[in-house]
Amino acid sequence: MRNLALMTVAAASLLAAAAPAAAQDLAAGAAAVRDKALSDQTAWSVAESLTTEIGPRMVGSPAMDRAKDWAVETFKAHGFQNVKVETFTAQGWFRGAESAEVTGPYPHKLHILGLGRSSSTPKGGLTAEVALFRTYDDLLAQPEGALKGKIAVVTGAMARAQDGAGYGAVGAQRRSGAAEAAKRGAVGYLVRSLSTDDTRLPHTGGSLPGGIPAAALSTPDAELLENLVARGKPVTVKLDMTSRFDPKVPAYNISAEIPGTDPNAGVLIVGGHLDSWDPGTGAVDDAAGIAITLAAAKLAAAQGPLKRTIRVVMWGSEEQGGSSEAYLAAHKDEIGKMVVVGESDTGAGRIWQIRLPTGSLDHPAMRAFRGAIAPLKVIVSREAPRFGGADVAGLVSAGAPFVEFDQDASRYFDLHHSADDTLDKIDPAELSQNVAVWGAFLHAAANSDIEFRAGAAK
Amino acid sequence: MRNLALMTVAAASLLAAAAPAAAQDLAAGAAAVRDKALSDQTAWSVAESLTTEIGPRMVGSPAMDRAKDWAVETFKAHGFQNVKVETFTAQGWFRGAESAEVTGPYPHKLHILGLGRSSSTPKGGLTAEVALFRTYDDLLAQPEGALKGKIAVVTGAMARAQDGAGYGAVGAQRRSGAAEAAKRGAVGYLVRSLSTDDTRLPHTGGSLPGGIPAAALSTPDAELLENLVARGKPVTVKLDMTSRFDPKVPAYNISAEIPGTDPNAGVLIVGGHLDSWDPGTGAVDDAAGIAITLAAAKLAAAQGPLKRTIRVVMWGSEEQGGSSEAYLAAHKDEIGKMVVVGESDTGAGRIWQIRLPTGSLDHPAMRAFRGAIAPLKVIVSREAPRFGGADVAGLVSAGAPFVEFDQDASRYFDLHHSADDTLDKIDPAELSQNVAVWGAFLHAAANSDIEFRAGAAK
Repeated sequence: MRNLALMTVAAASLLAAAAPAAAQDLAAGAAAVRDKALSDQTAWSVAESLTTEIGPRMVGSPAMDRAKDWAVETFKAHGFQNVKVETFTAQGWFRGAESAEVTGPYPHKLHILGLGRSSSTPKGGLTAEVALFRTYDDLLAQPEGALKGKIAVVTGAMARAQDGAGYGAVGAQRRSGAAEAAKRGAVGYLVRSLSTDDTRLPHTGGSLPGGIPAAALSTPDAELLENLVARGKPVTVKLDMTSRFDPKVPAYNISAEIPGTDPNAGVLIVGGHLDSWDPGTGAVDDAAGIAITLAAAKLAAAQGPLKRTIRVVMWGSEEQGGSSEAYLAAHKDEIGKMVVVGESDTGAGRIWQIRLPTGSLDHPAMRAFRGAIAPLKVIVSREAPRFGGADVAGLVSAGAPFVEFDQDASRYFDLHHSADDTLDKIDPAELSQNVAVWGAFLHAAANSDIEFRAGAAK
Repeated sequence: MRNLALMTVAAASLLAAAAPAAAQDLAAGAAAVRDKALSDQTAWSVAESLTTEIGPRMVGSPAMDRAKDWAVETFKAHGFQNVKVETFTAQGWFRGAESAEVTGPYPHKLHILGLGRSSSTPKGGLTAEVALFRTYDDLLAQPEGALKGKIAVVTGAMARAQDGAGYGAVGAQRRSGAAEAAKRGAVGYLVRSLSTDDTRLPHTGGSLPGGIPAAALSTPDAELLENLVARGKPVTVKLDMTSRFDPKVPAYNISAEIPGTDPNAGVLIVGGHLDSWDPGTGAVDDAAGIAITLAAAKLAAAQGPLKRTIRVVMWGSEEQGGSSEAYLAAHKDEIGKMVVVGESDTGAGRIWQIRLPTGSLDHPAMRAFRGAIAPLKVIVSREAPRFGGADVAGLVSAGAPFVEFDQDASRYFDLHHSADDTLDKIDPAELSQNVAVWGAFLHAAANSDIEFRAGAAK
């Protein structure tokens, strides 16, 4: 850390010699935020606190009410102002008791985790023969009625990739599989977890309700079912699952600000989501995102004073949906004031690439930002951002400029939505790298007059 | 594999040119067994069959009765003779429902797995404050009565090591911790799993009964308790555990032979254990050992005919104890006939070192064996074997010569005694390397007159 700091102070001095005063200030400021971030403990302490003092926090649960209070206290403790709790209504699904077992030809307990919006089984469970498909396309190729009375099983595997591309490639088998299986007559649905790990822990996640019980299998359980089915004898499974769905639960988008010196200079909006799935403690998904953006804003402002306001939002219903729409509805009149928006929601893996709005790369502020993060091994893409995060999608659709900071997702899908999403999986050094990138960005953008809107870059 | 085969055929030829005919035959035989083993599927098919068609098999359970029948059928299917089921009486402990949760200051569900011989909690569970110790020595330093009414927790971590040394270093905290905590007044005991992994899956294992409920915590849960206790407020935990202990359950040591051409030339005894803990499917512990030794014996004999008899044993109660004593009791009159004994019980990690009985290294048979396995990257220790395996400990204590083939245990303790002990964790190439080493050894030793007894090497 010491050598890096020396090197980058030298780099900043070189840059300063060739640039006008404002650019020099921007570069020095962004570099200073970066260096402080690399040894700062704020993000770790926020993530540790949320996962230890609250733990899992499903929208609509008592834990989410405690999380809301935690959010308010945490913002205040870190010196934020204008702390706001915006209440909205979301849909909440709650897991009850769940079990699954192979009843023939050889008995086995299966490790499952119900998918969000799964139905319950009839009381006492249901037992049926499985119809196993090694790809989701194989299931979709089944005609109507072909799965009548069966438990459909899809065992397509997710590939590991730095950019998380494997998740999208097989995502539909979790999101839409139950509904598609039900259309074809299935009475239950089991899907290999969208996971890159081989542990016996299943990964849950959102799904379109199909009116049938639907659950994720752990990787080894999916492979066990394949091996059982390969023997050519009928394989029967008993599912016993309970859950509760509430179409109206209270949810909260909680925000706080570090006001800029110029109230008319606009607001930068960044954050992560406060809600989580229930099996883990919601560490990489998404205590990390909250911790990174809160710490980045705090460190950027501490290097101020900054002209523009930075707002950090803890969105309250990303996993089961609703935060994005609620946030847009409450802030649509503010879109024109939004300098830029962005969300951190891929854990704490290091940022390996950034995408900035078209035309902004060569503004002195973004030059300063790029210079500051070059030692952090971050690629600067010349392509426009594609996705700013699920919780800012509403703002983006309404015209807010957005950034995309791509994190290394190689390990993220080992963990997310599973019991393994715990604090120990966050690497403090990688977490700090994220804070350094976000912090340098916020400082440079909030300390300048950069305009990220298409065609208006200056 | 092709290049390896060519190279070692050449090596065998060189050796043959300088050695008498018998040595030449020994070298060629051992090398041929090795080469066949490296592409043979027997071991994989045995491990796949046991884990898929039987799954977990605790001594005294219905699954163990099915496993016994599987063993007899499997031996016969692979051409073994003299299949014997030797029934003995063991002690059986059976898990019931188990749950644990932190009730204050912040609620959390804990992932636990009762230790073998744990007591049940009172009906409805028990709630108590925890007394947490970061090392087992810290617990042992407590005076009598110091833990009165508390749930004692020990969170010492196990280090990863190729030779598995970390297991021994902290093993006592699982094996004796409950008894020591109970002596000091504790009403319950929780111990960080003897695990090198960071998953949310706890690892069970044998323990001395302390008359109190005792369970393993997953690694993240142990760290969560540390973080909770570090806040300085009392931490309370509710434990609710049921189990059943039966001091007399039927158990089986099942063996089969490939008879040698000379009934008076002695018998080589190798094997693994058939029983397993309950959370996984007993793949690395110890379907692998059964698969390796069965396949090695079959391949060695197929390269025969061999002078000496090879016997493969599937011991029936290693985890909860009893196989070794029972096997000794049934075979003590045979000790003098035993050429050598050995057990494979560290999963399917590759063998990185062998230890042979003192004085035997330079016998032509062991020269042939060493030559055959040199390309498999196996170190030949000049030190005597220390441990032949838990199930041959009785035979060894009665004077049977034994070998020790050390496997890479770097990953074994991520898996063993946990739900993660499943077939997919066995690497087929590493499994084959084990078969090659055991097969080359069995062929060389059974095809020669080597005498492994101390002082009698020739």
